[in-house]
Formats: sequence, structure tokens, C-alpha cells
Amino acid sequence: GKKVLIVYAHQEPRSLNGSLKRVAVEELSKQGCSVTVSDLYAMHFEPRATRNDIVGCLQNSEEFNYGVETWEAYKRGGLSNDLIEEQKKVQEADLLIFQFPLYWFSMPAIMKGWMDRVLVQGFAHEFPNCYDSGLLKDKLALFSFTTGGSKEMYAKGGISGDIRYVLWPMQHGIMHFCGVKVLAPHICFAPEYVSEEKRKEMLIAWAHRLKTLWKEEPINCSPEWYFK
Amino acid sequence: GKKVLIVYAHQEPRSLNGSLKRVAVEELSKQGCSVTVSDLYAMHFEPRATRNDIVGCLQNSEEFNYGVETWEAYKRGGLSNDLIEEQKKVQEADLLIFQFPLYWFSMPAIMKGWMDRVLVQGFAHEFPNCYDSGLLKDKLALFSFTTGGSKEMYAKGGISGDIRYVLWPMQHGIMHFCGVKVLAPHICFAPEYVSEEKRKEMLIAWAHRLKTLWKEEPINCSPEWYFK
Repeated sequence: GKKVLIVYAHQEPRSLNGSLKRVAVEELSKQGCSVTVSDLYAMHFEPRATRNDIVGCLQNSEEFNYGVETWEAYKRGGLSNDLIEEQKKVQEADLLIFQFPLYWFSMPAIMKGWMDRVLVQGFAHEFPNCYDSGLLKDKLALFSFTTGGSKEMYAKGGISGDIRYVLWPMQHGIMHFCGVKVLAPHICFAPEYVSEEKRKEMLIAWAHRLKTLWKEEPINCSPEWYFK
Repeated sequence: GKKVLIVYAHQEPRSLNGSLKRVAVEELSKQGCSVTVSDLYAMHFEPRATRNDIVGCLQNSEEFNYGVETWEAYKRGGLSNDLIEEQKKVQEADLLIFQFPLYWFSMPAIMKGWMDRVLVQGFAHEFPNCYDSGLLKDKLALFSFTTGGSKEMYAKGGISGDIRYVLWPMQHGIMHFCGVKVLAPHICFAPEYVSEEKRKEMLIAWAHRLKTLWKEEPINCSPEWYFK
């Protein structure tokens, strides 16, 4: 069975994001996958990148450099426990699903903090091992999110621009940089402004997609896909 | 004199980001501006959007909706004190400067949390008052940041794509959405890989730009500027 890590950021289990997460756990488990969830709010996950992420002495305590210090700490096994735990989950996973509501054209800060703190140099990338030779190659990622704005607002020529523009930093800048292959995103537009009936259809559509997920080809994660 | 709020996110005062922040405080003060700094790491600023941001009872405690609850709380003066403080600073400012190191094609989580939590509906926008009619119109914003990658990597056709692609969510999706006019960004590429001499030149260039900042015209914050 495949291993899946769902990194989930919503405060409310009864939200559509909560339901989408549950649907994924159920459907993937039914397929025989082993599914782990990092429920970031429930974990009180720390989003701030600070000196606390390094156990013991710093390389250079005169001038703190987060990137350098976490890289060194990773190599000697000196990262804080919450980071080591998340890195283990990533290491074991074949697929990472990020489930969240879009906040300000991006992921909520608590999830951005997961990216900032978990994907340290040495673990996820190590120059020149980035992009196609990133250290997390052979893994897949999928961004699944809800929006406030409608599909029309997030169309090319719409007031908020093509939704693909907001995917560039997340899919290319983070996942592709680490070598992860990216599946097409799964987007539920403006669930707060549709009927309960429509929201149920959104859940069914997600479950349906997951049934054949392992047959999907990754997108071609290059500027053409985003900005053609 | 003009009022400036610098929202600053770096752990280390001795960093280039710390120096860029100091240069801005000095130069703008010299011009007679009144300058306030929100030093997010020093403030231990909370990036997580949670129920704690609302003082007292919720509108709907059965199903927590952060956007709805903070909007209601704003209207009745029931947001947490740290948010009210930041909103006061924003309200008084003519110019917002965001000073940070680029983390994963975006701002560090601690600064994303500032955006997520401070710019609540009712205060910064209130449909249909968004984009050109956003509630923070008549203010200016400027994103000033350092990168890990070089200028060549962040060129059109470079491996990381045009640096303007990463500016879209921050400048258009956040600031323009709130009605704020955006000045050209100020970018120091790859300061960790250049000489001390070059880093000093970066500080001088920033001070130099600030001397005539108030004469600058905002960019045309539309898709053409980003993706032409």
C-alpha cells in the first residue's frame, strides 16, 4: 500500500476543509493506503522559524542565520523534535496532500510555517540538488484548497487573475524545488457562497478523483503551465 | 511629516535585513517622517489565526469560521489587543514597508500571519470595497526583501522564473486587494554570496532610493506588470 501524508490547516473539523480531509482519509484508507494526518491547528504547530528549532549550541551565535543553523543541526541530528517528527512523516510518504483554505493568495501562515521549518536544507534540498534533482524526488504532492473568490474572479482576465498564478510559489517554488512531482491541484471555489447540495457535490467529486489518483500523470511544472 | 510603518521579520539584528531596516528608520527619520517598527520576531508575534483572536463570545460557536468571526469582532471592537495595536499602526501610516528575507518564494510565516490576522474584513476590505476601492486606499506599500537565489535564477527564463511572479500574491493579492498602492519592490539578490563591500553598496543604494521615495509613482498593479 502507498503512504500518504495529509498536511491539514483548518481550525474547524465541521468545515468543508475538514470534510475534504476526512473524505481523503476514508477513500485512501479504503484503497489500502496508510494515511497520516498532520492537523496543524490541533497540534498547535509552531510557524515561527527561530533559534528554538536548533537543540544545543549554534555554529555562529554572534550572528544567527536560520538557514545555515538548521542545515548544520539537521546533519548532526540536532533539530527540535517537532521538526524531526514531521520530516519522518515526509520521508515515509509517497504522496503529500496539502489541504487548506486559501488565505491571501497563499496558504495560511501555520502551513507556511510548516514549509519554512520542515523542508530544511540537507533534508529536502542541498545545492545543487534542487528542482529536478531535489532530495524529495520520487514523491508526489497535491494542493487541495478552498477559495473565497469565485471561479470567474480567478480566471485569466478576472479581477484576481488566473488561479494558476497563485500556484507558482507553492507548487514550483516549494515542491518542485525539493524535487517533488506535482499533481494537478484540487480547487473548491467559493464554497461559502453555494448551497449545501453543491458542497456535497464537491466532496463527492474529491472522493471520485481520489479513486484514480495513482494513475494520474504529474503536471509539467514549468512557467508554461502557469503563465502560458 | 509622513508616517511610516516598517513590518520587519528577521531573527538577527546584525543581518542584512536588520541593517536595511535600520537604514530605513534613519533615512526616513532624517526626512522628518515618523517611523514605527513592528519587529515581529522580537514581539513574538502570533502567526496562527485562531479563536483566540476574538475576545468574548462567538457568533457561531458550533462551526468556527475565522473570517466571519473576526469581521464581527472587528465591528464590535472585540479583536485581541495585539491585532488592535497593529491595526492602529496601519491606520496611521501613509506608507507600509515590509522588510524580510524571501522564504520559499514568499514571506516568512511570521509575516504571513501578520497579513492573515491584521488585515481583517471590515478593517482592510469589505466587499465590494476591495482592489481599487479597498479600505486602505491612500496608503502606499513597498516590499523590500533579500533572496537566496541570484538575479539570474530569478530572471524570465531562469530556473526560478521572473521574480515578479512571486510578487503577484503579495502585492496584488494582499496590498492591492486592500486598496493600497504599491511602489516598486526593493530586492537585494543573494547577499550571502557577495562580498562585504557589495553588501555595503546594497545599504547605500537603499538609503539613496529612500531620499526620493515620496516622488515615486506607484506601479500599475495589474497582470501586465507581472506576466506581460
